[in-house]
Amino acid sequence: MSDARTGLWLVGARGSVATTVATGLALITARGHGTDGLVTEQPDLAAAGLVALDRLVLGGHDVVDVPLLKRAAQLADAGVIPHTALHLVHDELERTDHRLRGGYRPGHEDQAAAVERLAADIRAFRDAESLARVVVINVSSTEAVVEERPGHESLDALERAWAAGESPLPPSAVYAAAAFTAGAAFIDFTPSTGARLPALGELAERHGVPWGGSDGKTGETLVKSVLAPMFAARSLRVRSWAGTNLLGGGDGATLADPQAMESKARSKARGLEAMLGHPVDGPVHIDNIADLGDWKTAWDHLTFSGFLGTRMSMQFTWQGCDSSLAAPLVIDLARLADLALRRDEVGPLPALGFFFKDPVGSDEHRLFEQHRALTEWATAS
Amino acid sequence: MSDARTGLWLVGARGSVATTVATGLALITARGHGTDGLVTEQPDLAAAGLVALDRLVLGGHDVVDVPLLKRAAQLADAGVIPHTALHLVHDELERTDHRLRGGYRPGHEDQAAAVERLAADIRAFRDAESLARVVVINVSSTEAVVEERPGHESLDALERAWAAGESPLPPSAVYAAAAFTAGAAFIDFTPSTGARLPALGELAERHGVPWGGSDGKTGETLVKSVLAPMFAARSLRVRSWAGTNLLGGGDGATLADPQAMESKARSKARGLEAMLGHPVDGPVHIDNIADLGDWKTAWDHLTFSGFLGTRMSMQFTWQGCDSSLAAPLVIDLARLADLALRRDEVGPLPALGFFFKDPVGSDEHRLFEQHRALTEWATAS
Amino acid sequence: MSDARTGLWLVGARGSVATTVATGLALITARGHGTDGLVTEQPDLAAAGLVALDRLVLGGHDVVDVPLLKRAAQLADAGVIPHTALHLVHDELERTDHRLRGGYRPGHEDQAAAVERLAADIRAFRDAESLARVVVINVSSTEAVVEERPGHESLDALERAWAAGESPLPPSAVYAAAAFTAGAAFIDFTPSTGARLPALGELAERHGVPWGGSDGKTGETLVKSVLAPMFAARSLRVRSWAGTNLLGGGDGATLADPQAMESKARSKARGLEAMLGHPVDGPVHIDNIADLGDWKTAWDHLTFSGFLGTRMSMQFTWQGCDSSLAAPLVIDLARLADLALRRDEVGPLPALGFFFKDPVGSDEHRLFEQHRALTEWATAS
Amino acid sequence: MSDARTGLWLVGARGSVATTVATGLALITARGHGTDGLVTEQPDLAAAGLVALDRLVLGGHDVVDVPLLKRAAQLADAGVIPHTALHLVHDELERTDHRLRGGYRPGHEDQAAAVERLAADIRAFRDAESLARVVVINVSSTEAVVEERPGHESLDALERAWAAGESPLPPSAVYAAAAFTAGAAFIDFTPSTGARLPALGELAERHGVPWGGSDGKTGETLVKSVLAPMFAARSLRVRSWAGTNLLGGGDGATLADPQAMESKARSKARGLEAMLGHPVDGPVHIDNIADLGDWKTAWDHLTFSGFLGTRMSMQFTWQGCDSSLAAPLVIDLARLADLALRRDEVGPLPALGFFFKDPVGSDEHRLFEQHRALTEWATAS
Repeated sequence: MSDARTGLWLVGARGSVATTVATGLALITARGHGTDGLVTEQPDLAAAGLVALDRLVLGGHDVVDVPLLKRAAQLADAGVIPHTALHLVHDELERTDHRLRGGYRPGHEDQAAAVERLAADIRAFRDAESLARVVVINVSSTEAVVEERPGHESLDALERAWAAGESPLPPSAVYAAAAFTAGAAFIDFTPSTGARLPALGELAERHGVPWGGSDGKTGETLVKSVLAPMFAARSLRVRSWAGTNLLGGGDGATLADPQAMESKARSKARGLEAMLGHPVDGPVHIDNIADLGDWKTAWDHLTFSGFLGTRMSMQFTWQGCDSSLAAPLVIDLARLADLALRRDEVGPLPALGFFFKDPVGSDEHRLFEQHRALTEWATAS
Repeated sequence: MSDARTGLWLVGARGSVATTVATGLALITARGHGTDGLVTEQPDLAAAGLVALDRLVLGGHDVVDVPLLKRAAQLADAGVIPHTALHLVHDELERTDHRLRGGYRPGHEDQAAAVERLAADIRAFRDAESLARVVVINVSSTEAVVEERPGHESLDALERAWAAGESPLPPSAVYAAAAFTAGAAFIDFTPSTGARLPALGELAERHGVPWGGSDGKTGETLVKSVLAPMFAARSLRVRSWAGTNLLGGGDGATLADPQAMESKARSKARGLEAMLGHPVDGPVHIDNIADLGDWKTAWDHLTFSGFLGTRMSMQFTWQGCDSSLAAPLVIDLARLADLALRRDEVGPLPALGFFFKDPVGSDEHRLFEQHRALTEWATAS
Repeated sequence: MSDARTGLWLVGARGSVATTVATGLALITARGHGTDGLVTEQPDLAAAGLVALDRLVLGGHDVVDVPLLKRAAQLADAGVIPHTALHLVHDELERTDHRLRGGYRPGHEDQAAAVERLAADIRAFRDAESLARVVVINVSSTEAVVEERPGHESLDALERAWAAGESPLPPSAVYAAAAFTAGAAFIDFTPSTGARLPALGELAERHGVPWGGSDGKTGETLVKSVLAPMFAARSLRVRSWAGTNLLGGGDGATLADPQAMESKARSKARGLEAMLGHPVDGPVHIDNIADLGDWKTAWDHLTFSGFLGTRMSMQFTWQGCDSSLAAPLVIDLARLADLALRRDEVGPLPALGFFFKDPVGSDEHRLFEQHRALTEWATAS
Repeated sequence: MSDARTGLWLVGARGSVATTVATGLALITARGHGTDGLVTEQPDLAAAGLVALDRLVLGGHDVVDVPLLKRAAQLADAGVIPHTALHLVHDELERTDHRLRGGYRPGHEDQAAAVERLAADIRAFRDAESLARVVVINVSSTEAVVEERPGHESLDALERAWAAGESPLPPSAVYAAAAFTAGAAFIDFTPSTGARLPALGELAERHGVPWGGSDGKTGETLVKSVLAPMFAARSLRVRSWAGTNLLGGGDGATLADPQAMESKARSKARGLEAMLGHPVDGPVHIDNIADLGDWKTAWDHLTFSGFLGTRMSMQFTWQGCDSSLAAPLVIDLARLADLALRRDEVGPLPALGFFFKDPVGSDEHRLFEQHRALTEWATAS
């Protein structure tokens, strides 16, 4: 493990997840705080020689300009981070704040120019901090589902659309394009489009960089990814599986938009059939309950039949803090994508499926199979 | 797979689990009913060439003499087996009834003589039905925890105690001794002592037979065996895990006896620390709610902490029918123990840990690791 | 209490609720089965001198023609009624079957003529069985929400529309009009329109009959009607209340239709604000899970704040059999509406609010206040 | 409402509940914080002319000497009180701290002398603060169940025992005796013995003071007291009711002591049979989960049968902060007991049953009946 430093460039850099990442990294590296929640600190992955936590440098884009310190104070009041942390990380958050740049606002600038501007921000960050590599991770709010457009089909078509002054890409794809153009890896932690367009895939190839996603598996779906294989292993037939997710905060508000919710719900549903081998009855709801803030409560109810068709049921309630669950995984993904860059891997990274509801390049949704695949990939010499 | 037949001799042959096994086998083999719940019907295990379901012949011991048909009617009223099944299996249950023999009743006969009598029953069953092999499985009610006694320490000490007219063994161990003496495999599906005494281990060696157990993993503990590894895989620290089990029926009544409950609860708790690598705060309760009958309801509540120590929680409620969940596993175990007999395996069978809360010869409690070990063992040539 | 007999005419007479009513009445009156679930058997209401259970005669309308005996067999398989009941009530169900008539099918007959035909069926039932009074109760599937139409505003407008050959009324209102025309009381146990139109109110006045509803309070909303007042009594501020209802069976399928679901959800939501005195955040979902059949599972999650604003939460899961919960209330309502007829009460019956999610003529949703009002009304001399 | 001031003397004055009371009163009176959770702020009770909140003066006894400010900081870290409150109430908590005195420690002083010393503390508090009346409320940890002793039977026997240098009373009764001797009202918010001994009842009569209790109804039992009457009102037969309470903090530790737990569980169970009119199967567990601190999680599971005996079930999970729920009720009780003193009421106060699991002088456990009785009593002229 060299002592080169790696940049972690967050899209949505002033949001809850990003602020939790910044606070946590500062507490761990400067204050010796524990590393609970970090998968890459497990002995088997540590063996992969990943970049050290104190070698990660934070930067990012956001369309809002609320100071990180103010967001951190809000998170402390909400119980997401310890109150005692605020003064300990004060200076480090101020330093990070200076590295944040203005994000892409559709309609306010030409899209092709925006990609260049955002890419320039990333290059400037790499040069200013003399970083060996940069990983861009999207932790901004979920976008609405986008319709297919001609500019999506190929890089050639995209560039023709841009030349004609069109804006065919949703914001998440604009950030992916900027990352690739700057020679950075791109990971989408949200269910948004990100790099999942043929045109973007070609762009990653052109610049020879890896990318991954989508939609961090932090709660209800995480539990599904061990329970569904459990029923399969016991030859118990899952007959229905209904889920309700209550959450507030920014994400809750976004998902109150039916289109965004559909995008999220669709990505949640996708895995279950793959794990059970047959379709399963039952809806997935996502509701915005402002009062819950960052604390997501999910209730799942499932029915199954066993020997001689006897009907049985199971239900669970998950009460998790989304930002707390997402932040360490974002750090894990930065270290792992950095490894892929070091290895000159190009294109989709299916080995990262362990982290996602909707893994690119893989139809494996079973958590422990994903964990094995991740470990094998990371420790392969 | 030859067409030789194998005997499945059940201890507690007139109980709910045994009656569900008898009804289910009849429905599947004679009536083409589906095989949901049977692990050994999965493609990977089917490849092991296990004895066919229609080659299994049932017999057993019990201390009560309620007719199987009457028990089956009770199970149909309780929704454990379909009402429509009763007339379909009427004749087969009557035939099975004729093969059942009186069980061991402490204090009513000399223990050494009892072992001989029970072994003779098993041998007579093998001869009468011209069976290639016999597997004895204990599905009777849970015994109280037993204190160590001199006769337990070695086969030599046991035989001296018997010679002195003593009765050092609990009933479950008497049945294990009878099975070994008759050259049969013995599996304990209950948390009772069974073959888990040095003297019994030596007896199995002397007769060259395999044995396994203990305590079928059918509900709450099954879920624990996938959730605990999930938290570990995500570096989330489980801080407390409390469980309450409500059940009625015979098992509920037995476990209302604090000593028996302690035996069951102890076996439930054992695995969690092994899976998490550290002790976890929290009790396990087992309560007898007569009104629930065979339908067990378990509620588990666990707290965990993640990144920066943020506290979160999860709870689940499992509503399962114990006899429905246990019966197919008993059939699976008969087929797998038959395989071990065919392979002349001797002594404990750790590869069967997948089925048990308290696996003999293994400290692996993670379900999917157990599933892999089982498949590798069964398909090894 | 005279020995005159009263007719109970059910709309949806071949559905689950109606079949459970028919089976239950037969078991109770002819076989001495217990009266659990019947509110009118409580001592305080028994004092009101209601018509005896063995004085109730069943009849009704339905658009399907599946035999009651077949529906009863389905309900027994589903565990809604005891299997042992089937032969006990065989003859009585056949007798009831002969009293059922064809229902109203929009588009198949002139609406004004349909009202006359249905009213004639009810009169013929009264004469044939020499009944003192008849109560019509709608237990058919939920209708979609209907838009206001000119014919709804007044009896005069309705009759003009009919004269012009129009069909302004939804089916539930057609049955209400038929009941009033035949001099019968009408109770709507569903959230459909029923008698809740100005034109229908006038028709009830003209014929001098009482009516009541709407939407039987059998599960989640029943619990809400005691929990919400509990929080109010302790000055705890309810901040959000989210509910998910999973159900199958006919009702589940109907409610899968978004418009019908909206009607039901709207009626569920209405009461909460009235009980708490302020609006509360949170959705109510109703999902069709075919596998659940008649067994409804509802999960409610609510957050509240107490002293110094500390946030707390509560959740409950209700697992009830809708037809079992509704059937005795339908019998209670028949006895109470019969009392109103005997007393020559005319128009809406707010005193019946205890039974409904959306009580006509009352904004009181608190269960125990409703229970007091019901008892005072019934026992008033 | 005169402007006379009333003293609230807390036993266990440095515990979580007492500290929350002190912090809350300061925030409400000096800082205009809202009064959520205070029952006596409801319009109907406000009409009773209770002592104003800013006329209450705090004092109390405790056997530990941790500063209130330190306890308040701990409560803020635990999320029981807002962090922002700490500096706002700093001075007021220091003032209160100066009014606290050393509690009674069995074995360290003669019991009769202890009663005199504690009574003298209360009198000195009244004089120093020129208070019109004093109410003593026990919010200390739960005691173990005590056996009957001769000194309990009568005041005469008690005084003989004291004269003989014996210590027949448990600590909670010693505090009750001191309160009565000082002419103060005594309320026991815990399940401990308190004033519930014949000898103490006589002592209250001698000094002409009122007393009440026992065991504040703050969570699971509160919910029971509305759900049980709901089932009764619908003629649904409750067949089993099992409860599990998980809590940490001081109370959790105390209740880990089986004897104390028995006292608490017994008081929890008492009401259910009274509300339903028949005994109900099912245990109540109280478990100490250190990790939960002040946040109690209770799970209740109940089965019931309805029409034709169909079995159904309900379960709920309550997640409340005990100190937040108890503190406002302690303030309510101080104001109401002050009213009883002003009215010269003597002996048990059954009208306060609304607040308790185990109401003295009443067998009414139904919440809304208790609420009515409380309001009638408080507003009687």
